Amino acid sequence: MSGKKYSIGLDFGTQSCRALLVDVETGEEIATDVMEYPHGVMDEYLPDKVTKLEPDWALQHPQDYLDTMASTIRNVLKKSGISADNVIGLGIDFTACTMLPIDKNGEPLCFKKKWEKNPHSYVKLWKHHAAQDEANELNRIAEERGESFLKRYGGKISSEWLIPKIWQILNEAPEIYSEADRFIEAGDWVILKITGNECRNSCTAGYKAIWSKREGYPSKEFFKALDPRLENVVDEKLSRNIYPIGAKAGEITEEGSRITGLKVGTAVAVANVDAHVAVPAVGITEPGKMLMIMGTSTCHMLLGTEEKMVPGICGVVEDGIIPGYFGYEAGQSCVGDHFEWFVKNCVPEEYMKEAREKGIGIHKLLREKASRLQPGETGLIALDWWNGNRSVLVDVDLTGLIIGCTLITKPEDIYRTLIEATAFGTRMIIETFEENGIYIKELYAAGGIAEKDEFMMQIYSDVTNREIKISGSPQACALGSAMFGAVAAGKEKGGYDTIVEAARKMAKIKDKVYKPNKENVELYNKLYAEYKILHDYFGRGENNVMKRLKEIKRIKRGQA
Amino acid sequence: MSGKKYSIGLDFGTQSCRALLVDVETGEEIATDVMEYPHGVMDEYLPDKVTKLEPDWALQHPQDYLDTMASTIRNVLKKSGISADNVIGLGIDFTACTMLPIDKNGEPLCFKKKWEKNPHSYVKLWKHHAAQDEANELNRIAEERGESFLKRYGGKISSEWLIPKIWQILNEAPEIYSEADRFIEAGDWVILKITGNECRNSCTAGYKAIWSKREGYPSKEFFKALDPRLENVVDEKLSRNIYPIGAKAGEITEEGSRITGLKVGTAVAVANVDAHVAVPAVGITEPGKMLMIMGTSTCHMLLGTEEKMVPGICGVVEDGIIPGYFGYEAGQSCVGDHFEWFVKNCVPEEYMKEAREKGIGIHKLLREKASRLQPGETGLIALDWWNGNRSVLVDVDLTGLIIGCTLITKPEDIYRTLIEATAFGTRMIIETFEENGIYIKELYAAGGIAEKDEFMMQIYSDVTNREIKISGSPQACALGSAMFGAVAAGKEKGGYDTIVEAARKMAKIKDKVYKPNKENVELYNKLYAEYKILHDYFGRGENNVMKRLKEIKRIKRGQA
Repeated sequence: MSGKKYSIGLDFGTQSCRALLVDVETGEEIATDVMEYPHGVMDEYLPDKVTKLEPDWALQHPQDYLDTMASTIRNVLKKSGISADNVIGLGIDFTACTMLPIDKNGEPLCFKKKWEKNPHSYVKLWKHHAAQDEANELNRIAEERGESFLKRYGGKISSEWLIPKIWQILNEAPEIYSEADRFIEAGDWVILKITGNECRNSCTAGYKAIWSKREGYPSKEFFKALDPRLENVVDEKLSRNIYPIGAKAGEITEEGSRITGLKVGTAVAVANVDAHVAVPAVGITEPGKMLMIMGTSTCHMLLGTEEKMVPGICGVVEDGIIPGYFGYEAGQSCVGDHFEWFVKNCVPEEYMKEAREKGIGIHKLLREKASRLQPGETGLIALDWWNGNRSVLVDVDLTGLIIGCTLITKPEDIYRTLIEATAFGTRMIIETFEENGIYIKELYAAGGIAEKDEFMMQIYSDVTNREIKISGSPQACALGSAMFGAVAAGKEKGGYDTIVEAARKMAKIKDKVYKPNKENVELYNKLYAEYKILHDYFGRGENNVMKRLKEIKRIKRGQA
Repeated sequence: MSGKKYSIGLDFGTQSCRALLVDVETGEEIATDVMEYPHGVMDEYLPDKVTKLEPDWALQHPQDYLDTMASTIRNVLKKSGISADNVIGLGIDFTACTMLPIDKNGEPLCFKKKWEKNPHSYVKLWKHHAAQDEANELNRIAEERGESFLKRYGGKISSEWLIPKIWQILNEAPEIYSEADRFIEAGDWVILKITGNECRNSCTAGYKAIWSKREGYPSKEFFKALDPRLENVVDEKLSRNIYPIGAKAGEITEEGSRITGLKVGTAVAVANVDAHVAVPAVGITEPGKMLMIMGTSTCHMLLGTEEKMVPGICGVVEDGIIPGYFGYEAGQSCVGDHFEWFVKNCVPEEYMKEAREKGIGIHKLLREKASRLQPGETGLIALDWWNGNRSVLVDVDLTGLIIGCTLITKPEDIYRTLIEATAFGTRMIIETFEENGIYIKELYAAGGIAEKDEFMMQIYSDVTNREIKISGSPQACALGSAMFGAVAAGKEKGGYDTIVEAARKMAKIKDKVYKPNKENVELYNKLYAEYKILHDYFGRGENNVMKRLKEIKRIKRGQA
C-alpha cells in the first residue's frame, strides 16, 4: 500500500445506489457509478408477482442493497483504475426510516422460504405509509401521557418512523414480530453485513426511533401503554448500543470483502442518513449555516450548541449530524412536487407546442417566461401546502391556496408564484429558528433544484435576504459518506481524525454564490408579510376551512 | 289589414342586431335574422383606419344601427312571408349605457365631415372604460356631499354610465361638448330616428343616468361641484322627459318607414335595456321571481313593491323593468369568463387531445369529467372574483382565490369548483336581497349558459335550493322587445294594453325545470358556509391582501 489514498462513499437512495470514489487529500471525485435496485420500490406486488400489497405500502428487497453495492464499488475501482489497496475507508448513507426484521444471525426474514410470501418480512421503505393508524394512536397516547420526547419532534411522530412500523407488524403479522430477533435500519444492516458489527447510528436512532443521547428510548411504561406486548420492545427487538455519527463501525470482514471487492481490514464508518451526510460535504461543521437539500421536497439541516425546542421542527438530535453538536432538522413536504403537479395538470397545449418548437423542456420554458416578470408583478400569492405542511405547522391536512387570480393571469404567473411560495415557506422556517434563539447567517443548498435552477435559487436568496452557496458536488451525499469513510480510517491510515478536518480538505462549494438583490428583498418583505398573515390564518386554527374541506372530501370519496 | 297580427322585437347587442318576428296571440317565433355591425366594436382605430384610439376605448358607428335594423327587419318579413301590413308593433332593446352626441336635428356629430376624425363624436359603447378617472372623482364628490342617490346604486357610479362619459367628453373634447345639442342613449336615438319623437326611457335613465322617478336627476349643485361647466348639463344637454317602460313612443314616420320597411303608423315602444327586457319574456311580471341572464357575466333582475336599499345591488329603478314596480338589478361581473380563462390557461394538452379524439369541445369534456364528481369531492372552494365582485361587494379590486389544492387535484376539480363558486356568488346575492326584506321564491334563467349547460344549472339549483325555470326562447331579449311592441300597439290594434297581459300570452319557459336534490343541498349548505366566511374575510376588509397585491402589481407593471 503506497501512494494516494482514496475513500468510497455509498449513497443508498429510493431507486438506486451510487458509489463515489474520492481522493482523500483533495476531495477530488475520481469516479462514480449508479445502479438501480433490481426490484425497485415494491408497491403493488411481492417479488412472486402474485401476492398483492395494500394501498400505501412501499417495500424493498434487501438483496438489492448487496447487489448494487457489489456492482457499483467494483465499477468505480474499474473506471478509475485505482486498486482496492489504496482505498482506506468506506462510508454509507441510507434513506430512513427504512427498516427490516432479521434473525439472530442477521439474516433478513424475507430471505427464508417460510416467510417469502409474507409482506411484513421485507424491508419497509421510508415512504411506506400504511402505519398511519398506529402513528395516530401513538401520538394520542404520548400526548395523553405528556411524554417529553414529543417536543423534540415538533409535537408529532410520523407514520414513516420506526416504532409505528414495528407496531404495524405486531398488529398485522404477530408471527413475524415474534420470529424477528431484531428490527434494524437497512443502513445499519448493510454495515452489519460487511463488518460483522451491529452499530446502530445515532442519526437514524435520534431522528427516526425516538431515541436521544440523554434520555434514551421512551419508557417501558409508554410502550406498554401502546400494547402490552411492546413493553420490552427495545431490549427484545432493538438495541441500546447507539454509535455517534463519525465513529468507526469496524473493518471489512472476509464476507464483506467478498461482497464489496474491498480489502479485508478497510475501515468502515457507522451508517448515516442521506440528507444529513451532505452537511459536512458542503463544509458546514459549525452553527449558523443551514443546508437545504432541495428536490421534490426540501430538508433543512442546521447545527446548534444547545438543545432548544423549536416549534414545528422535525427533530433535534445530539450527535445527529456532526459529533458534538445538536443537529436540527426541518422540512417542507412539497417543493419540486408543486411544479410537477403544475406541469401535469395546468399547462396549456400551446405552451407544450412552444417548448417542442424551441427544443426545450416545459419547465425551462415556464422558467424563461416567469423570469421576465418582476417580483410582485404576478399579483398572486400562494400557500405551498399541496402536500400539507411539515415545518413549522406539522399538519398533513393543510392544503394549497392561490390568491389574486384575474382574467389576465397566465400559467407563468402561477408557476412563479408556486416557486415564491416555497421560498416563503423556507423563510418561515428560518424565522422560526431565529425566534427561538438559533441564528442562521448563511444558506447552503444541494440537490437537483440547487444544482440546476438558477432562477429559483435567486428567488430564494431575495426572499430570505441571505447569500446562498451551492454544493460543489452534484452528489453531495455520496461525497459526505466518503468523508466519513476517511474519518473511519483515521489520520494514521492517511485519512482524518475528525469530520471537521475532513471537511476542511474534502468539502466543496461552487464559485457561484447567490446574493440578494436589494430592491427585490424589499418587495419580497412586503409579499412575505402577506404570506405570513395567510399562513397563520389558515394554518394556526383561525379558519380551519382546509381541514373541513378535506374531511368532506374524504367522506364523499368513501361514499362514491 | 286582416288576419293574424305580428310584432317585431329588435335586440341591439354588442356585436350585432337581431330581429325576431312573433305571433302576437301565441308568442310563436315565426322568423329571426341577425346581422353583425359593419364597423363592429372600434377599439383601435376610427373608420378612417388612421386615427388611433387610446386604451380602454370602445366606440360604435351609429350608421350600423340603421343598416342592421333595415336589413334584419326586411329579412324576417321575407323569411316568414308575412306582410308588413300585419306587423302591428315594434319594440327595441339596446346595450346601455351606449351614448352619442347629436345636433338639434338628431343627427349624430360623427356623421359630419367636420367631426368625423374626432373620436368623441362617435357612439361610446357600454364597455368604453376610459372615463374611470371621471367616475372616481364623481364618486368621491358624491360621497363627500352625502348625495342620497349613491345608495340606489349600491354606493358607486360606474365608469360605464352616462355622466362619467359626458364628463370625459367635456374634459377631453370641449368642442364636441359645446357642439352637441344633446347626449342621448343609442336606443333612444334609434326610436327618435324612426318615430320623430325623443322619448328617453325610464330603464336606461334610471339604471345608467342617475335619474329616479321621485328625485329626478342629481341637483345642479352636485353637477356644479363636479365642474362649473356641468351645472346645467341636464337642461342643456339631456332631457327631463322620461317615459316609463311599456309606453308607446310613437309611430313609424315616413323616414322610419324608409329605414325599416315597416308601414307608416306602425306602433313603436320606448326603448329598453337588453337584459331587462327579458324579464317579461320569461313570464315574470310580479315580485318573488328573479331572472338571471347568464353568459360571460350574469345580470340578476327582480321586481319589488317598495324601494328598499339593498347593499351592493347595481340599481333600483321605479318603472325600470315592469311599470308599477321597482326594478332591482344585481350582477356578477365574471361567470362564463372564468371558464374561458380556465380553458385558455389551465387545460393540459392531453385533455385537448382527448376532446379532439371524442369529437367534442373542451368545455364539454371538462363538464363530463366534472359531472362524475360528487359535491364536495373536489376538496376545493373558490372565490369567483377573477374580474372583481359587482354584487354584493361592489369592488373591482377583489381577485380570485382557490383553496384546497393537493397533488391529486385535477383540472376537472378546478373547473367544477369555478362553476360552484359562481353559484355561491348568486346565492350570496339572493340572501342579501332576502336579508333586506325582498324575498325570492323562484329562479328563472336565460342566456347562453341557461340554454346549454344542464350540468351548471343543476348545480345552481342545488346551491340555491330553489327551482330554476329556463327561458323558452333562446332569444328572450328580442322576444321581450316584440312583447313591448305589441303593448305599444294596444288591444284595439290586436295587441295588448299591458305588458302583464302580453306576458300571459307570449312569454315562454321550457318544460324542463331544475329541481334541487336534497342530499346535494345539504352538502352545499356546508360548502356555502365556508364560502361565506372567505367572502367576508377577504371581501369586507378583514384582510385586504387582494387589494394590496393588486396595488403592488400595478406599480410593478408601471415600472416594467
